[in-house]
Formats: sequence, C-alpha cells, structure tokens
Amino acid sequence: MEDKVSVGLLGVGVVGSGVISLIEKHQEKIAHQLGCHVHVKSALIRDPNKSRHVEADLDGTVFTTNADDVLNDPEIEVVVEVMGGIEEARESILKAFASKKHVVTANKDLVALYGAELHEAAERNKCDFYYEASVAGGIPILRGITDGFASDHIEQLMGIVNGTTNYILTKMHNEGVSYEDALKEAQELGFAEADPAADVDGLDAARKMAILCRLAFSTYIDLEDVEVTGINGIDLADLQYGDNLGFIMKLIGFAKFDDKQVEVNVQPAFISKQHPLADVKNEYNAVYVYGEAVGEAMFYGAGAGSMPTAAAVISDVVTVIKNMHRGVTGSQVVEPRFKKELKTEDQRFGQYYVRFHVKDEVGVFSRISSLFNQFHISFKQILQNPSKNPDTAEIVVITHQASLDKIHQALEALNNLGEVLNIRSFYKVEGDAEV
Amino acid sequence: MEDKVSVGLLGVGVVGSGVISLIEKHQEKIAHQLGCHVHVKSALIRDPNKSRHVEADLDGTVFTTNADDVLNDPEIEVVVEVMGGIEEARESILKAFASKKHVVTANKDLVALYGAELHEAAERNKCDFYYEASVAGGIPILRGITDGFASDHIEQLMGIVNGTTNYILTKMHNEGVSYEDALKEAQELGFAEADPAADVDGLDAARKMAILCRLAFSTYIDLEDVEVTGINGIDLADLQYGDNLGFIMKLIGFAKFDDKQVEVNVQPAFISKQHPLADVKNEYNAVYVYGEAVGEAMFYGAGAGSMPTAAAVISDVVTVIKNMHRGVTGSQVVEPRFKKELKTEDQRFGQYYVRFHVKDEVGVFSRISSLFNQFHISFKQILQNPSKNPDTAEIVVITHQASLDKIHQALEALNNLGEVLNIRSFYKVEGDAEV
Repeated sequence: MEDKVSVGLLGVGVVGSGVISLIEKHQEKIAHQLGCHVHVKSALIRDPNKSRHVEADLDGTVFTTNADDVLNDPEIEVVVEVMGGIEEARESILKAFASKKHVVTANKDLVALYGAELHEAAERNKCDFYYEASVAGGIPILRGITDGFASDHIEQLMGIVNGTTNYILTKMHNEGVSYEDALKEAQELGFAEADPAADVDGLDAARKMAILCRLAFSTYIDLEDVEVTGINGIDLADLQYGDNLGFIMKLIGFAKFDDKQVEVNVQPAFISKQHPLADVKNEYNAVYVYGEAVGEAMFYGAGAGSMPTAAAVISDVVTVIKNMHRGVTGSQVVEPRFKKELKTEDQRFGQYYVRFHVKDEVGVFSRISSLFNQFHISFKQILQNPSKNPDTAEIVVITHQASLDKIHQALEALNNLGEVLNIRSFYKVEGDAEV
Repeated sequence: MEDKVSVGLLGVGVVGSGVISLIEKHQEKIAHQLGCHVHVKSALIRDPNKSRHVEADLDGTVFTTNADDVLNDPEIEVVVEVMGGIEEARESILKAFASKKHVVTANKDLVALYGAELHEAAERNKCDFYYEASVAGGIPILRGITDGFASDHIEQLMGIVNGTTNYILTKMHNEGVSYEDALKEAQELGFAEADPAADVDGLDAARKMAILCRLAFSTYIDLEDVEVTGINGIDLADLQYGDNLGFIMKLIGFAKFDDKQVEVNVQPAFISKQHPLADVKNEYNAVYVYGEAVGEAMFYGAGAGSMPTAAAVISDVVTVIKNMHRGVTGSQVVEPRFKKELKTEDQRFGQYYVRFHVKDEVGVFSRISSLFNQFHISFKQILQNPSKNPDTAEIVVITHQASLDKIHQALEALNNLGEVLNIRSFYKVEGDAEV
C-alpha cells in the first residue's frame, strides 16, 4: 500500500477550496481509515491572480492553468472535478478515464446530461466514478439509495433539492412577503445567484431528480424526461389559502415508479403539514423515499455550501481509495434494469388545488361541481370567499385523487363555462392522508 | 461467480419471517445487482409447531431446531442472526465466524454488549460482520455515518431511536393523556411489549447509542458508559409547560465528542420546536448528526417492524455478497482511533428546565435567582403560575448554558432553601438557538 495517494483537482472555486481545506483538516481521520495519506498534488485554476479562501497549509499543492498538468500527471490517481460547466468538464473527465484515473465530481449539470456516457467510459477503463455531491450537497442520499435500499423497491421519491427556492418559499410562507421581495433577500444573503434562473425555473432541481431517478429506479432517465415548472410568479394568496387548508408550498421533485413506468417532474406543490417534508425550512434540502418494505424514510441536511459539498466529495474520494486498495475499482457500475417507459397523463394520479373566480350567481357552484363530476373528479376541501368585486366570488378546491388527463380536461371545460371568469392557479397536492 | 449464494437464518420470528419473504419478493432486484440469486437454505426455529407469517414460496428452505444444521453446512456462506437474546446468539455467531461464514445481525443487545469481541472474531477469520438493522430499523444510519461522513468529524449525535417511547410521548403531548394511558394504548396497538421495561427505561435506546457512538466517534463505548433515564412517570404538567415555552419532550439519545472526550446518555429532554427532531412523531425514529463540515443532517424513518428491519438485514447481505464476489470480505473493520475518555460533569454543558414549588412570599424569587447566580447559572425563560394552594407558587425556569456539576450543586442548594417546598422536575433542553 502506498504512503500517499495523489489527487488532482479541477477547479478551485467555492467547492474546490473546501476540498483542499477539508482534506488538510481531516487528514488524520482519513488516513486512519485508509492507512495512507491523501494529498492534493495539483489544482487547475482559471485565473492565477484571483484570491482564494483556502484554510489550509497547502503542503506543496501546485496551481496550474493547464488542465493537462493534472490529467497527464501519472502520479495522480484520482481526479476531482469541481470546475462546473459542461463541455470542458466532460472532456476533462473523459480524458481522466482514458488515463485510468478515477473521477469524483460534484457537477450535477454534467451528470444529468452525460451520466450514461461517463459511466460507460468509467466502466470501459475499469475506473470508479462517483458523484454523491451532485445531489443535495452534504446529504449522503445517493449511497442511501444504492446501498441502504439495495434490498428494497423504491416506489416514490419526493425531494426538496434546491435550497434557493426553498428559502424563497419559506420566507414567503412565514413572513407573507412577495416572491420578488423574497428573491431579493435571498440574493442579498447569497442563497440565490444574481441570475437566479436555473434555480427558480426548477432546472437545478430537475437535474438532481434525473440523477436520483436513475439510481432509485434502475432506469435511464434523461434530463428532458423531467417535466419542470418553476416558482417564478407564485402568488402569495395561494400560499395563504394553502396554509388555511393545512398545506405548505414547496418546490417538489416528484418521482414515482410502478408497473415499470416512471413519472418524474419538478413543480411547486402543496404538501400536507403532517408530512415530514413540510418541516424542511429555509435553505435546507431533504429527500423523502418511500420503499415497499422500509416505508417512509427521509434524508435531511445542507444541500449546498462549500464545506458540506466538499465533505461529500471527499467521502467519495475515500470510497475510491478504499476500492483502489482492495483492487475493486470500476466494479460499482450496474446496468439499468429497466428500459425507460414514461407514464402518460392518464396513468398519473394526484390530488389538485384549483383557485378560480366565478360570477356570484345562484346555482354556479352546483354547475361547477357537476362539471367536475362529469370527469369523475370530486372535491375533498372547498373554500369560497367573497371577492373585492361584489359580483364575483373566489373559489378554492382541493380534489380527491384524479388522473392528470381528467384534471386537464376538467380545467379546460371549467375555463369555457360562462360563469367562470378565470382560473387563477392550479397546483398538485402531496402528502395528504389519502395519497 | 456462483449461480446462487446460500444464506442460513437463525430465527424465524418477526424479523426472520420478513427476511424470508423479502428475499423471495425482491429476488430479481437483488439478482440484478449481484449477478446471482440469494437463497435461504435453512432456518433455525425454536418451535416447529408454531405458525409463521412467511409470505413466500419457500423454494425448499429447510426448517430445523438444531443450530448446527445451519452453522455446519458448508454450502452456507452467510449467516443471518435474528433470533435475539444474548448468549445463544453470541455463541452461534462465533461458531459461524470460526467456520468462515459471514454474519449479518439485527441484534442490538448483542452488538452493544459484545461488539468488540464479535468484530475481533470476524477480522481474525477474514469474515464480514454487518448490523445495520440493529439501530433504527429501516434507516440506513450506520452506512450514513461510516460511508457518508467518512471525510467529516461528527461532533454530535441526537437520536430518537426507540419507537415505543416516541409513540407514548407523542400521544401524551398531542392528546394530553397520562403516561399510563398512553402506555396502555401503545401496548394495545403493538407499539409496546407486554413488559415494556427495556423500552420505557431507556435501555433499548442506550444500546443503539453505544453502537452509534463507536462508529461515529471511532472510540469503543461500552453499554455501561451510557447514562440512562427512562420516561417512566413523566408528568403531563411538564409536557404542557414545555409546550408553552416552545419545546417538545422526546427521549433523546445524546452523544457528543470533542477534545477526544465523549459524553453519551439517554434521557427524556425538551427539544426546541424549531429543531428537526421535534417533528419526529409517533413510532418513527430519527438520528440527527452534526458534522463539522456538513453541519446539520438527519436520517428519518421506521425504527422497527418486520419489513423495514428485514430490508436493512438484506441490504447488509447484499453488501456481504458484493464483497465476496470482489474477494474483499473481512476488510471493513477499522480499529477505533481514540482511546475511550468520558467527560466528567464539569465538562458537560447544557441548558436545563427546572420546575419547583416555593412559598409565595415577597422576595423569594430574587433569593432563588441569586442562588443560581452563585453557581454562574442564569435564566433564559421564567414562568410563574399560582398554585392550587394559595400560599405556594409553581416556578418553571429554563437556564442558559451551564455545566452539569454546577446545575447539580445549584439544585442541591435550592432544595435546602427554606422557601423551596420541592423540586418537581429537571430536564435537559436541546436544540435551542444558543446550543
């Protein structure tokens, strides 16, 4: 066994700095488990003049602006990719595999888009490829799913896997501030980027759900299979109605697998206050897993940040080095068990929240109710409030379980009804007792 | 690679029946991961006439009342011990290791008492020894700690690791029923044993905390190192005061590690409603982990039950068989890194809840307050209620952080004060912002 394993780092930004600091700081614990030291031999940086927050005695780490200094160094056995972005990262990782280097990455964009290609390249070169940090930062959810649920059938996943949107929605719910104000505060506190699109549009969460689905259901889900709706423009009024009815709005990554068919989407949804996910506040993340045998389980923690993400990266590095020492690298890849088959709308069931305005006339509600009945949809909860305009009424309903195609048909018919002025909002409802 | 791996089962009770059912039911998923089938070849039963709930086509499993039929069978490579109890289970496992069989157990009593001996025997025989199911049933917490936190320093653990007591306390809190009534209902629903002592006295939780501590802190904690107080006789009045002050009572397994010193105990404690553990209700379990890098994380799920526990057992079996195929069995044991050193009372800090009765006289509270000040203890919250007796008052205080020895000294002095009639209760407070 070697005295020391050399790691090459691609990217010394927020996560990369954390990786260097933490490898130094927890060197003794790591060495105790591995029987050898771990050393960041070289690190790729973009701008040599930029100052970095590395809390470590750097012990001779060489900084370079040329990726080949890392990728062609025969002493480097493990490459840690934390540079972000797609094309350059992908090429670097493929180069690393071609040179028989193992790879650990935190890059969810890349794994979501090119996971199959990268896994295939890893397998071909008998290399390890791990990416625990790519989903829910410091929460060991990928191990939880692959190892902890190895004997179970995972039937459903629900994830709060984007800290920015959870922070914004928590703020709106708790303090009654508008979406715009909550976003602004999130940006000031560093929980949201100056350009928040990837977060608030749900794309970041969709990437994580694609990765989770593949591992949980053993079927290859592409990023474009994940239906996405963001939180942009959510009306505070809906949060308040939901609250009155016993629900909290969250951006939920939902995935279901039954009859070998998958449903996966990311959308703002109401979750029952009785459900464990309802208590996941602020920037925290959580993934709720429903296993046929285990039943309900939830993994909760910090979904981002330099140190939590770095800890996940280095735990993967520890796994890789253990595999190296045992001579079993490249053996973790398991081909998907199922061919991808996505559920159609008539196979997707759920409860729904609908808010709409009607003319305040005798018999309107009974006509609406019988319209829904035509589509075999009945109401579980109804709330009717007088509107500011004396001639109109605002109605909020929560339906019993119904198929998505029937809901869409009902909403279209509702919209065409003369007494209905507008349909203001429409959200899925999760975690209610009947689900 | 073999076509099939033969497993021997010791015990076909609640968990053993689940193991047989689940191996049959999820055979395809297991086979997909392993490239071979898993078969329960023989199973030790105590009473051949007892009926069993095995939902499986038994595929030729032989039931025997002689443990040697399992332990001496050369075809059996993995022994699953789910018979419970101590001495017979210990001997059987040692025999299994001596015959180079790998062992998976759900037996927390045994692992808490003889973990070191069993690990040593496993290592000597190059065998695997896994016991994920021994702590918090279906929640993959041991993997979470050893693999997921491999790069981090775990500084603190708090666990709700006993479903029976959590069910009772939830019932008392939500419905205002007495301890005795809640226990009775838990017994009727099967959440508590006819003899509930091991659960309500905290011993079951203590065993799990001993196991968790060893893995989290890499130091060998004996069961007797865990200080234990049960929930027996908890007064509903305290739950209600706690509720008013923003706290919920839980049986908390608490473990802390700093300066290479350990503190570990199980006791009913008040937990802030803001803390993720406060929302863990009914029979559910959760383990909250505080890592230096990761920060807060929590693992939540079913802590017991036939299927969740069986799922954890079989996930361990899958791990063992993967190791067998890779030729790396017996390599997971890592010697403890630290010699055991327990914190003394002056090194243990916390906030405390104290309820006591005093004579309702002028100046009493100021004398009590200055008494606490003498021990450098100040109050964070104070609640004073008139008592039924017009001459006495009931006082509830929550202190700021203080060392346990000072708290004990203060309570003794308080008890000796002429104006103090009695000290009714005294609980630790966890999860408050200042902790």
